[in-house]
Amino acid sequence: MKQNILYAQSGGVTPVINATACGVIETARENRAKIGKVYAAKDGIIGALREELIDTSKERKADIAGLKHTPGGAFGSCRFKLKSLEESAREYERLVEVLKAHNIGYFFYNGGGDSADTAYKVSQISDKLGYPVQCIGVPKTIDNDLPITDCCPGFGSVAKYVAVSIMEASLDVASMASSSTKVFVLEVMGRHAGWIAAAGGLACREKGDPPHVILFPEIPFKQREFLKKVKEAVETHGYCSIVVSEGVRDARGKFLADQGTKDAFGHAQLGGVAPVVAGLVKAKLGYKYHWAVSDYLQRSARHVASETDVDHAYSVGKAAVELALAGKNGVMPVIKRLSDDPYKWTVDEAPLSRVANREKMMPRRYITKDGFGITPSARRYLEPLIRGEAYPPYGKDGLPQYVQLKKVLVDKKLPAFKV
Amino acid sequence: MKQNILYAQSGGVTPVINATACGVIETARENRAKIGKVYAAKDGIIGALREELIDTSKERKADIAGLKHTPGGAFGSCRFKLKSLEESAREYERLVEVLKAHNIGYFFYNGGGDSADTAYKVSQISDKLGYPVQCIGVPKTIDNDLPITDCCPGFGSVAKYVAVSIMEASLDVASMASSSTKVFVLEVMGRHAGWIAAAGGLACREKGDPPHVILFPEIPFKQREFLKKVKEAVETHGYCSIVVSEGVRDARGKFLADQGTKDAFGHAQLGGVAPVVAGLVKAKLGYKYHWAVSDYLQRSARHVASETDVDHAYSVGKAAVELALAGKNGVMPVIKRLSDDPYKWTVDEAPLSRVANREKMMPRRYITKDGFGITPSARRYLEPLIRGEAYPPYGKDGLPQYVQLKKVLVDKKLPAFKV
Repeated sequence: MKQNILYAQSGGVTPVINATACGVIETARENRAKIGKVYAAKDGIIGALREELIDTSKERKADIAGLKHTPGGAFGSCRFKLKSLEESAREYERLVEVLKAHNIGYFFYNGGGDSADTAYKVSQISDKLGYPVQCIGVPKTIDNDLPITDCCPGFGSVAKYVAVSIMEASLDVASMASSSTKVFVLEVMGRHAGWIAAAGGLACREKGDPPHVILFPEIPFKQREFLKKVKEAVETHGYCSIVVSEGVRDARGKFLADQGTKDAFGHAQLGGVAPVVAGLVKAKLGYKYHWAVSDYLQRSARHVASETDVDHAYSVGKAAVELALAGKNGVMPVIKRLSDDPYKWTVDEAPLSRVANREKMMPRRYITKDGFGITPSARRYLEPLIRGEAYPPYGKDGLPQYVQLKKVLVDKKLPAFKV
Repeated sequence: MKQNILYAQSGGVTPVINATACGVIETARENRAKIGKVYAAKDGIIGALREELIDTSKERKADIAGLKHTPGGAFGSCRFKLKSLEESAREYERLVEVLKAHNIGYFFYNGGGDSADTAYKVSQISDKLGYPVQCIGVPKTIDNDLPITDCCPGFGSVAKYVAVSIMEASLDVASMASSSTKVFVLEVMGRHAGWIAAAGGLACREKGDPPHVILFPEIPFKQREFLKKVKEAVETHGYCSIVVSEGVRDARGKFLADQGTKDAFGHAQLGGVAPVVAGLVKAKLGYKYHWAVSDYLQRSARHVASETDVDHAYSVGKAAVELALAGKNGVMPVIKRLSDDPYKWTVDEAPLSRVANREKMMPRRYITKDGFGITPSARRYLEPLIRGEAYPPYGKDGLPQYVQLKKVLVDKKLPAFKV
């Protein structure tokens, strides 16, 4: 008997996670002879546990195709980490019950390292619980920190957004620097690793180009060296353009963003390393500044997505179905780079046991010796990932035509479960 | 004898001010029989006073064409307001000396209300000083606050950026709201008028669509009503998406952004109404939040410009040359709307005396009764302005190919002048 797929989105969403969903659903539909339906968990693993399953067969073909250009998580996602098999035994058992109740033979978990870990555990226990399921992890994270895979779907589009944005804002600052703002600070995501901040460095194609300073979480913040670098840039180029990672820490390991600032209501003001850095420049060097915090904008900017990234995202979804059809279990499709220039890649597979709970940090050799820029080898790695444009269609109203799914839920068969 | 044009960019730059420069230079080049060179003041009026004139005839044709898709101010701009004829007599006289020394018969000042005022004054005094010059104001401002013209080149692209960005970020928030961030706040520009904030409302095409709350500078902030509205949105839609203008003030007229916040260095922390609003929501309603401040990104995002806006910007540059050839003085080309749907427009002219020093505020009827959204008439006005995409070309490196000019300066003929 044909079995169904359960697909779930996990953790922070990306501009292209729905392209992966599109790859899964379209490829499954092409294999109707062997695969039943694709169910999508509503709001991620929480929905799977609650038996809230969206029947994607109820969605129009055009809407499924439209997922390829729609940001956000079309089926919903959540941050909910299952712990060890012992600690979260109740959840793992429930998950297998749900899979069993709905004839689900394939569980696709689209997320980062934690999700790979969960999928790996499910692949181990489902057999023991008398209902074997093929578990496939599907990579996704803007943080680009999964091991084995050359890059993570989602990262390339964020990288493109950051590189384009700092290039554009720097043109603005440069125009007026002789009599106005001299320092511009753009805050980007990446609490643990500087991949996204590094992408800003792609805008610097020739010596002197902005950004003039990048602050990485990997490099402890040194105030004196930083201020010296800013002053030099302003004196040489007339202005200084800065990209700062939200995860920058001082020499004692404290987040620069976490300065104990209180707002007018007396509450700790959370987040925002850009204003801290800009304020420091103003106080010590006296330069007029502006700052921007792109926050979710960078993570949802499908309008400026990387074509390479969209292709990666779709391909890992497609590959997940192919791996399932090939009888694989406990694996993840990964991007394998074949060459930098011309950029060539293929989809390979990796065991979830080797992916789970391992973070890929940015190599020190990608950061210049002074700690404020990226090296040619970083550029060689990063550049192909932002190549190509993959615009969404726009309506007559000037706005992108992002799809909204119907999200019809499958009838429940099990008692309620409290998550 | 053929006379030259002096073109100067003024005030805050826009994603499309260079499209206007392109319109001026290309149209002048098409009229070589009647017009000499186009000089561009380096860094705006300051460069004109310092006799720092860029000879645009030294730029390649392809680079001039590329100005149409390059953000920032390619020749440089400044915020430098000439005062009354009496107070700034020295500067006005110097300006006329520079025009005279370089056989400049046409002065094009590309800016907002202040620049229209300056151009108007120059048009009045040049005759008296024995060197008549035709002064043409050329409209530009993201604030959309010039009178007479239906809209201001620059605004449409910022409007499109804001509408697209809040739409995308809202999809992200909606994906994860059931277990994570419930409130997202996007801060946009517009210190005096809510045009830019209103543009965010274009993303709300159907009842319930984000943004759920817009905070306008025109509406005094009322904490209780605001919190009620946020709570309602979260309870109804699962999340609340907010656009806030940097210019929002409390009932006593004090900027919400100016809350006397001190940073870790003990300095007043300037700017950032988004974190203030988000912090309030957290404190009073307990919702998890995220906030973004787009700052210069919105003003330079040529990658998502409005085609309508680019066309407007180019057309007013072209029209300035045509008005000059027609012997006009003390005028400004303006956008005249002929119909909303289908959107039709033409370029008309207005006397600078009627443009100078008048701000066009947003009509109250564009804001809903409760003060948190836009009305159908606002939508009818705004929508055509964000229509159409006008992408810049991208290189093989995945980045826009923005042009860098050579900016060759003309030899000086006058003694130095201290600005």
